[in-house]
This record gives sequence, C-alpha cells and structure tokens, in this order.
Amino acid sequence: MTFFYKNVYINETATIAGPYEKKGPLHHYFDKSYDDLKMGENTWEDAESRILEESVDILLAKINKKRFDIDVFLSGDLMNQLTSSNYAASRLGIPYLGIYNACATSVEGLIIASNMIEAKQIKNAICSVSSHNNSAEKQFRYPVEYGGPKKKTTTFTTTGGASAYLSSEKSLIKVDSATIGTVIDMGIKDVYNMGAVMAPACASVLYKHLEETGRSLDYYDMVFSGDLGIYGKKILPEFMKLEYGLDLKNYDDTATMIFDVENQSVYAGGSGPACLPLVSYGYLFEKMKKKELKRILLIATGALMSTTMVNEKHTIPAIAHAISLEVNL
Amino acid sequence: MTFFYKNVYINETATIAGPYEKKGPLHHYFDKSYDDLKMGENTWEDAESRILEESVDILLAKINKKRFDIDVFLSGDLMNQLTSSNYAASRLGIPYLGIYNACATSVEGLIIASNMIEAKQIKNAICSVSSHNNSAEKQFRYPVEYGGPKKKTTTFTTTGGASAYLSSEKSLIKVDSATIGTVIDMGIKDVYNMGAVMAPACASVLYKHLEETGRSLDYYDMVFSGDLGIYGKKILPEFMKLEYGLDLKNYDDTATMIFDVENQSVYAGGSGPACLPLVSYGYLFEKMKKKELKRILLIATGALMSTTMVNEKHTIPAIAHAISLEVNL
Repeated sequence: MTFFYKNVYINETATIAGPYEKKGPLHHYFDKSYDDLKMGENTWEDAESRILEESVDILLAKINKKRFDIDVFLSGDLMNQLTSSNYAASRLGIPYLGIYNACATSVEGLIIASNMIEAKQIKNAICSVSSHNNSAEKQFRYPVEYGGPKKKTTTFTTTGGASAYLSSEKSLIKVDSATIGTVIDMGIKDVYNMGAVMAPACASVLYKHLEETGRSLDYYDMVFSGDLGIYGKKILPEFMKLEYGLDLKNYDDTATMIFDVENQSVYAGGSGPACLPLVSYGYLFEKMKKKELKRILLIATGALMSTTMVNEKHTIPAIAHAISLEVNL
Repeated sequence: MTFFYKNVYINETATIAGPYEKKGPLHHYFDKSYDDLKMGENTWEDAESRILEESVDILLAKINKKRFDIDVFLSGDLMNQLTSSNYAASRLGIPYLGIYNACATSVEGLIIASNMIEAKQIKNAICSVSSHNNSAEKQFRYPVEYGGPKKKTTTFTTTGGASAYLSSEKSLIKVDSATIGTVIDMGIKDVYNMGAVMAPACASVLYKHLEETGRSLDYYDMVFSGDLGIYGKKILPEFMKLEYGLDLKNYDDTATMIFDVENQSVYAGGSGPACLPLVSYGYLFEKMKKKELKRILLIATGALMSTTMVNEKHTIPAIAHAISLEVNL
C-alpha cells in the first residue's frame, strides 16, 4: 500500500547514542552520546526509556516547542509491551499511539504520522524509537555477563533514542511517499541470522514501492535498508535480481554504517529500531542538506521474532516499510 | 487529540470466542466459539493466532472479499512482540501495521484506520485484536497449572479474536469521532488491580473527548469502558465526579458484560484486547441495529504493564482511547 504526500516535512530530528555508537564513524552526527550504558539509571530498561524521552526533549528544544504543542506521539521499541515508549509517554503526557513492527517501527511511525499530517487531521507529530544493546540482549538472548560467543551473522543491537518532528511546515526534508509492507516468512529459524530473515521482506516492499510509484531504482540517489547487516546486505541485491530481475546498485545498509564493522566487535553490524534513524537523522540528512543526496528511499526492516515462538520451533516472519524522502529545493 | 469523521463506517465485524466466553451471557452473539482452549493447535500462542486469523477469514466471507482486496491490516495483541498478530499477518499477506496499547489496542486500530479512510488514503481496512487466557497467564502471571489463588480484583483475560471491516461505504454503524488518550500513571504497583490502574486514564480520555467535542455525557445513550472490571467500574464514576465534577450514569463496562461475574469464576470480570470488541461487535452493534442504542462511546483502556518493570519496582502506566459510534439513520 503506497501513499503520496504533498505537504509533509521532517522539520527536525534528535538522536542520542550509546558508547559503542559513540566509538563508531558517525559519532559527530549525534546530538548527544553516553559513555556508559546505564546513563545514570539503575537498569537497562530505565536507561533505554530515558534516552528515548531525552531525544524528545532535545527535539522540542530545537524546535522551540513545549510538550503540549505536540498533537500525537508515535513510539515503539523492542522491549516487551513497548516498555521504553510507554514510560517515556507517561512522562511526556502527549497523546500516544504505541506501534510495533520490530526494527521497522521507525518508518511505521513516520508513515502513520505523515498520513495524518497530509490529511490535516493533526498539525504535527513526534515519531520516536529506541533500542538498547543490553536490554535487548537480556530479553532476547542471554545476560551479557555470560559472555557467550556468537555466530558471525549475529547483529549487535544499537543503543540509541531517536525522534523526528513532522509537520506541514515547509523545510528541507520533504516526505514524498511511503509503502507499507506485508509480512514475509521464508521459513528461517536461525535467530542469529536476521539479515537472511529480513532481506526478502525488504525486497518485497522495495519492489512494491517501485511498482506502485511507477519508478525505477535509479529514481533514487540511494536506497538504504536498516538493518540487514553485512550478510543480509549481500543477500538483498541477489534476491532483487533473482526474484524481480532488478539490479540494485545504489544501495547501502545502515547496520554497516553505524559501526566500523571491520574494527568494532559488532559481528554483522548494528540492529534495533534506533539504528536506521541514528544513521539517517544525522548523517544522511546532513548529506541531503548539502544536496549530496537529493532523493533517498529508507527501508526499515523488522524481524518479528518472539523467543516463545522460536522455542516452539516456529520460523521467523519479517516485515519492512519504505519511505521516500527528498530535498525540498 | 480528537478527530471527526464524515465518511467512515464499520461495515461488518467477526468475533470468535473461547470456552469461558461461550458459557457467558453473550454466547449467541459470537460468530464462532470453541469448547477447547487449544482450538486444535499445539500451543496457546498458536491457538490465539489461529482465532485472530479465523476472525479475519469469517469477516472476509461475510463481506465477500478476498485478502488482496484489503488495503491495510491493523492488528495487535498482548503477546510479546505482538506474536499472534505477526503470525496471522504472515499468513494473511495484507499490508500490515502492528500496534500496541495493551487492552486499548482495539480502539487504537479503529482510530488509525478511520483517519486513513476519512482522508481517502485507503479504501478499506481490517482492524483486529486477540487475547487468550492461557497465553496471557503464561506470559504475565504463572502457569495455569499452578492453580494459585488470586485477589478478587484480578481480571480474567478473555479468549477471543475480533475483526472489523471499515470503509467509506455507507452502512448502519457510523464512526463519528475519536479521541487519542495520554498515558496516566497514578503510582499503583498492584498487578492484580488493573481496574484501579486504568480508571484514571479512562476518565482522562472521556473528559478530553467531551471537552474537545463540546458534548455533555448525555449526548451518548451509553458510555462503555473495556475493561475496568467490577472494581474499576466503581472507581470511574467516583473519579469523574471528584476530578471533573461530572455525573457518569449512562455507563457500563464490558468486563462485567462478557461474563456472568456473579456465577462464573472470573474474579473482577474479563480483560484483554478482545473483550471490548467481543461485547461491542456482537451484542452492542445488535442493539444499535435495533435502534435501542443510537450513540455510544467506546473507551478501550489498557494497562501498559511489563513484568520486567514491575519486578524492577516501577508503577504501572495506563492509557485509554475513545471512539464514538452512531447509528446511520
């Protein structure tokens, strides 16, 4: 399902990163970063919720608005029951819609907000996501303290909070169109190979986006997925070629951009709902401001993995949503 | 945040209930019900996902449409990572947005869908929710086999799948307006008293809805919350009186309607995202078709409870969303 927009802009963004991201190549693009994973809180969950809320506060300061000026807060994260978002929403007091499509949540939020703004149902929205390496490891894998080795196809959940302010007020980053994806399950059960789980869902929404907009791949300066990782990033172009006969060349994956994957111990690269916005809201938008990128397609990919279902021998479904952004000349 | 609609209708609904609901007073309003909680599946999670999908299939049969005729599937449930919705979405293949506001998810979905239909961004949508007594008990409390006693303020998660088809095509149930709520946390930590946790959030969105629509309580034939239970249902009118000076009389709570709370062993009544739609999509809509109810306000209330946060001594935040439905004369 594809939507076109005439009057939606991402006016401003704010990102907060954790210590691993701070040591990565994009460190000077974050609004704030922490050296410590606890961020002064007592638990990983509190730390994650804190950076989500803090990204909203930094965003509000940038646009010189108060919490009560915001019509809708759309937020999601990896924690069961969207814990980080819920507790941040509780403190923020903005009308709240909780959303969840795993690491595709960031673009899911941007789509719902863009639809409401385009239709003049709301005047503005803040879309947020967060993820935290240790809260995710604790919930989905093993306590970090175990120090167990992992497969090289494993991704490393990014620690970050990211927020975007959207309205119909003209600014440099225009939301052009977006496509909601369908769930794709290729029968993979390997929880340490999310790139392979998600690449077909990414290919599916990319193909559908091109089909429904009548565009070819070279319409975009670059297509960015987030987050397939080193191995999923190799699968996607192969899958696009085999399944749809398309040559995906102008392409990169934010999992491999947020970290120096050769020199940081992050296995196949970054993941988590925060990874794509941590890369795009800072680094990519800066490139757009400099007109080095004029039209980009962001595809957020989510593995809809449940530890319960994996223990019950189910395969892992995945989803992806695409949003097209262009420089408003 | 309140929205008004001119061209949105709930054209058709489908509900599937479990064995406890089948023994309740509304049993003949469900499209289908099961005598066994496993519904022929091997696990509680598979059973829950199955009834969610089955409610969509029954709905599609009623409206004589195929899965590919549907623009967007909005769904959520109580399972971590929205497992039931994800696996149902995987089998259905409809463009999917996962949403989560606990037991307020049903109305959250109706609001997002109504906004997109009103703006002609989509031609139709299916909004679904599910809950399952045993999958919820297993995840949030203790294995049912423990047989531990509970406090009388505990609610009993309903087992059901419920789906609604919305479009701009005129039919009897018109979506009139809706209000997105904010998260309210009154400092309660008792996981066995969700009625008390949610009543203030319910009051907050009810007051905001009246304020933003300029209506008084008697505008509605009835206000229904779902699900505060026996005790929360007593708190809400008291809270409305004390906090806002309003007399809430034309009011009932679906937690106390889905079961015979005097004679079924359900503690304070039903809960779970499926409870409100199980009551409204069958019983209440039938009353609307007979013109016994012409204008109703449905308020879905959700306790944003996380076992992790409760273990870490946090209080429980809550949210509620309201949707106003009227008979299209």
